[in-house]
Amino acid sequence: MYRTHTCGELRTENVGQTVTLAGWVQTIRKFGAITFIDLRDRYGITQLLFGEELNAEPDKNPLGREYVLQVTGIVRERSNKNKNIPTGDIEIQVTSFKVLNKSAVPPFTIQDDTDGGDDLRMRYRYLDLRRNAVKKNLELRYAVNRAARDYLHANDFMDIETPFLIKSTPEGARDFVVPSRMNPGQFYALPQSPQTFKQLLMVSGYDRYYQVVKCFRDEDLRADRQPEFTQIDCEMAFVEQEDILNMFEGLIKYIFKAVKGIDYTERVERMSWEDAMWNYGIDKPDIRFEMKIANLKKPASVYVNKEDKADLINGADFKVFDEAETVLAIAVPGAAEYSRKQTDELIDWVKRPQIGMKGLAFIKVNNDGTYKSSIDKFYNEERLKAIANATNAQKGDLVLILAGAEERTRKAMSELRLEMGKRLGFRKEEEFKLLWVLDFPLFEYAEEENRWVARHHPFTSPKPGDIEVMINNDPVIENAVKYLEHPYTNIKANAYDMVLNGNEIGGGSIRIYQRELQEKMFAALGMSKEEAQHKFGFLLGAFEYGAPPHGGIAFGFDRLCAILGGSESIRDFIAFPKNNSGRDVMLDAPAAIDQKQLNELQIKTDVQ
Amino acid sequence: MYRTHTCGELRTENVGQTVTLAGWVQTIRKFGAITFIDLRDRYGITQLLFGEELNAEPDKNPLGREYVLQVTGIVRERSNKNKNIPTGDIEIQVTSFKVLNKSAVPPFTIQDDTDGGDDLRMRYRYLDLRRNAVKKNLELRYAVNRAARDYLHANDFMDIETPFLIKSTPEGARDFVVPSRMNPGQFYALPQSPQTFKQLLMVSGYDRYYQVVKCFRDEDLRADRQPEFTQIDCEMAFVEQEDILNMFEGLIKYIFKAVKGIDYTERVERMSWEDAMWNYGIDKPDIRFEMKIANLKKPASVYVNKEDKADLINGADFKVFDEAETVLAIAVPGAAEYSRKQTDELIDWVKRPQIGMKGLAFIKVNNDGTYKSSIDKFYNEERLKAIANATNAQKGDLVLILAGAEERTRKAMSELRLEMGKRLGFRKEEEFKLLWVLDFPLFEYAEEENRWVARHHPFTSPKPGDIEVMINNDPVIENAVKYLEHPYTNIKANAYDMVLNGNEIGGGSIRIYQRELQEKMFAALGMSKEEAQHKFGFLLGAFEYGAPPHGGIAFGFDRLCAILGGSESIRDFIAFPKNNSGRDVMLDAPAAIDQKQLNELQIKTDVQ
Repeated sequence: MYRTHTCGELRTENVGQTVTLAGWVQTIRKFGAITFIDLRDRYGITQLLFGEELNAEPDKNPLGREYVLQVTGIVRERSNKNKNIPTGDIEIQVTSFKVLNKSAVPPFTIQDDTDGGDDLRMRYRYLDLRRNAVKKNLELRYAVNRAARDYLHANDFMDIETPFLIKSTPEGARDFVVPSRMNPGQFYALPQSPQTFKQLLMVSGYDRYYQVVKCFRDEDLRADRQPEFTQIDCEMAFVEQEDILNMFEGLIKYIFKAVKGIDYTERVERMSWEDAMWNYGIDKPDIRFEMKIANLKKPASVYVNKEDKADLINGADFKVFDEAETVLAIAVPGAAEYSRKQTDELIDWVKRPQIGMKGLAFIKVNNDGTYKSSIDKFYNEERLKAIANATNAQKGDLVLILAGAEERTRKAMSELRLEMGKRLGFRKEEEFKLLWVLDFPLFEYAEEENRWVARHHPFTSPKPGDIEVMINNDPVIENAVKYLEHPYTNIKANAYDMVLNGNEIGGGSIRIYQRELQEKMFAALGMSKEEAQHKFGFLLGAFEYGAPPHGGIAFGFDRLCAILGGSESIRDFIAFPKNNSGRDVMLDAPAAIDQKQLNELQIKTDVQ
Repeated sequence: MYRTHTCGELRTENVGQTVTLAGWVQTIRKFGAITFIDLRDRYGITQLLFGEELNAEPDKNPLGREYVLQVTGIVRERSNKNKNIPTGDIEIQVTSFKVLNKSAVPPFTIQDDTDGGDDLRMRYRYLDLRRNAVKKNLELRYAVNRAARDYLHANDFMDIETPFLIKSTPEGARDFVVPSRMNPGQFYALPQSPQTFKQLLMVSGYDRYYQVVKCFRDEDLRADRQPEFTQIDCEMAFVEQEDILNMFEGLIKYIFKAVKGIDYTERVERMSWEDAMWNYGIDKPDIRFEMKIANLKKPASVYVNKEDKADLINGADFKVFDEAETVLAIAVPGAAEYSRKQTDELIDWVKRPQIGMKGLAFIKVNNDGTYKSSIDKFYNEERLKAIANATNAQKGDLVLILAGAEERTRKAMSELRLEMGKRLGFRKEEEFKLLWVLDFPLFEYAEEENRWVARHHPFTSPKPGDIEVMINNDPVIENAVKYLEHPYTNIKANAYDMVLNGNEIGGGSIRIYQRELQEKMFAALGMSKEEAQHKFGFLLGAFEYGAPPHGGIAFGFDRLCAILGGSESIRDFIAFPKNNSGRDVMLDAPAAIDQKQLNELQIKTDVQ
């Protein structure tokens, strides 16, 4: 037996006992003939006290950081107690020890604030994983995994494994493919999600399914995307949207409680996609703070604003606003006292390429009731007041105004809102605010391809009232510019996203379960009957044999863990992540394979 | 809301309540104006009673098997109770109903004893999954999954996900590979197991790891092998073999209790590999019954039998035995009264190509103490008695003797033993008998390749006493025939297999954790230093930074479920299995992919 106790276990009750521990040397401190070593394992740190025997023959007993030791000794009460660690009241007077393995000097320090750069830590990931900061992340990940399973189990969900070697059905993201040796010239694909399988399980009557499952997307990796990622994937039969929303806000609340000790008792807010886009400029608003966006000009797009605020802006001979497609404003609380330098800095901020605006107008709502503005050449105080009122600005607030093309301006205003929220301390890491976003458009029009694409995926049902609209209208559009007038533009999806602190953590939909509607959807996406049959014949077939109404959701497990752990980066919550080129630098993968392997697969690469 | 209750929920307490159910039509029975329908969902079956309204307009209300119905009605006590189902005391007097979806006539009956052939059921797997027999299997699988996680969690194991897109390191089975678009000409491999990652996690200090994880092997599929399969994969640090055996027989006992209600309190038997091979002819003996194999002749191989029984056979002028490399015997209880026809049938049985023996000798140990034998021309009664005694035959037993080349004879005798055990009813489906097989040889010699191969895998440590033997001897063999005399032949692995009812359900080992020994192992397997560094440099590197002693095990989850479910076939316990050609006939995968996909990956197939 290598140990009687772990390094996190001993307390004053154990004083006098002879114990054996095993672990890693965290620190070594010498005081004359006495040496203190902090011994570390997964469970904690215990102080060891070595006497003469260690120093007597230092060549026979070399010890260094990260050496693996087995020590036997007697538990003693410490004179100099360490209140910061649970084992801080005791130490081990070592009577014998053994070096189980040596260690070279690590390329970076194994500490919370390590001196190792990102690349180095990824190359030596097995050492990076020793750091307490990383260990805490993986422990949190396991706690979330466990809590999710407990909740789903208690609610009659069954974990059913779906296959990884499936069929490539490119629609949306790119598939990773796997050449088949037994079926030369043919390929499997790795699943982007178990979508069709979980639907088949509903057709099969399994009623409530879940899986914590790896998914794969061969996309160009933006920051913080991984080619393989994990979903908490769920599906239910005989449900409407309301059932799903209740079940899964229950799941997230359960995880909050189990992992963070948070009682999230209030009902999760709900917001239509349209309101989210107009009020926050984005489909995943961070509602930990208000600072809603006011739309100062009637938009040119399909999305009709509820109030026509055109008169707030127009007719003042201010060309920038008159000619802009969209003019948006927010009120920043308490910022009316910003100096010229501070407002200039904000103007520079919105001009950065990532934001891409040409300028920023502002109105200071002074505490004395006066208004000061960068556009007071064009707008008199009454009009400035009207604009400020549209943003709900209070005395002391600073109104910020952006103008330009709709999509860019909305995006820029959303970014500016988040930035100001952050600067003002409204985005607290330990405050968690959930939101359901509902009523997405079912379709988007891809102008380059001149066809409709599914905003969520091709299995999402329209809202009940829109099913007839979809069935009864031909998807074909004569003139691409006219798509805004096509009835499909206004069809709403029976879909929902769960947003946490401005991040989409999950999304799903009530599915199509009728063959006719599913065929109509495939046709709308530009698939021929033959293509639909080739790719999804099994699903269309299944819908002929008594498919029940069903729907589900998938949570981005990596992202959920990152947010709960207070981090921006999902990589910190994955044991062995890949870098932005999709490489595992520790393994040095991907890599060339043997010619023998290529021959067996009957494939050639075009690359030398 | 689609339902107020499930189809398995209502009891006499609910009589008088108005309820809504949803489910599938299992059966329809008409009696004049009254129609009985059994409505099925995942939770059970409830009888529905329809009155006139159903028959009034049959065209408007078509109902058939597998139609999906939503019905509202009043719970009534049944006059004709069905004691076979939990809901058998009640029925629903339907007041209104809705057809949620129709069904075509299924291609086979959705019943325990279906009329559907294997191919048809695989093609319509989503219908096959509706059958109660299949559902029970997946429920059992989930119960095993859940129980395993509960036990491991309670014992401080952490579920840590390891990557699926890794590096190809062909050694043993063939890898599935995945071309990388972002790194053209390079490939990922899908893991055959998370072996090196779980070892790295031990180096990282995670101490106790588990995962229920998909693994992939591109092998020619023998019956009941799947290209993707699931392991319960575990690893522990600071452990010796004894710790592992105790922990994981605990796991299996916990699963027995949780899933089957079996209290398996006795200590799991342990047997050396050598004893298993000599006493049972196989490395995974079914010890639900004795019938041990007696070795009647000193073997020519390295495996020295404990007692020299050469004199039992030799010198009787029976050429078949004299010239045979190996002569083995078993005593079949109570079979001395077998007729000529029955013994002839046994002779035919061993002559079948699958067994491949030339004949079978027998000795009847009659109840009156006399012996009757097919070889009594050569052996007098005293010698027959000596042979029979070697098998521990009792009065009334039939001794069966096979002779021939060692490996084939041993295998044939093992098969014959299992066959006789089955015929005699010794292999009861509901009796579970565990066994640890220990002390495997570390190496096997691959004569064709003229090199050693690792019997388990290249990360398995020799038994503590054999480490020196390995370090101090050069693996190279001058003359391939001489490998039996090489010291490596006798090195035992610090490895263990768990056997359940004659099936290997799990296996593992204490791992090498010293760089020098691991390098020696790679060299023994014929890897150059460069090759070892290229393939496993990350692991060798990790061993330089304080790798702890560690070991682990992996259970074949599919197989374990199959045995617990009393089935021979793992396919019955996989939701969407592949056939023996590695095809998913429901999806029709693998399949050709678009030229665009091949171009993006910069690969070509040699197949048109």
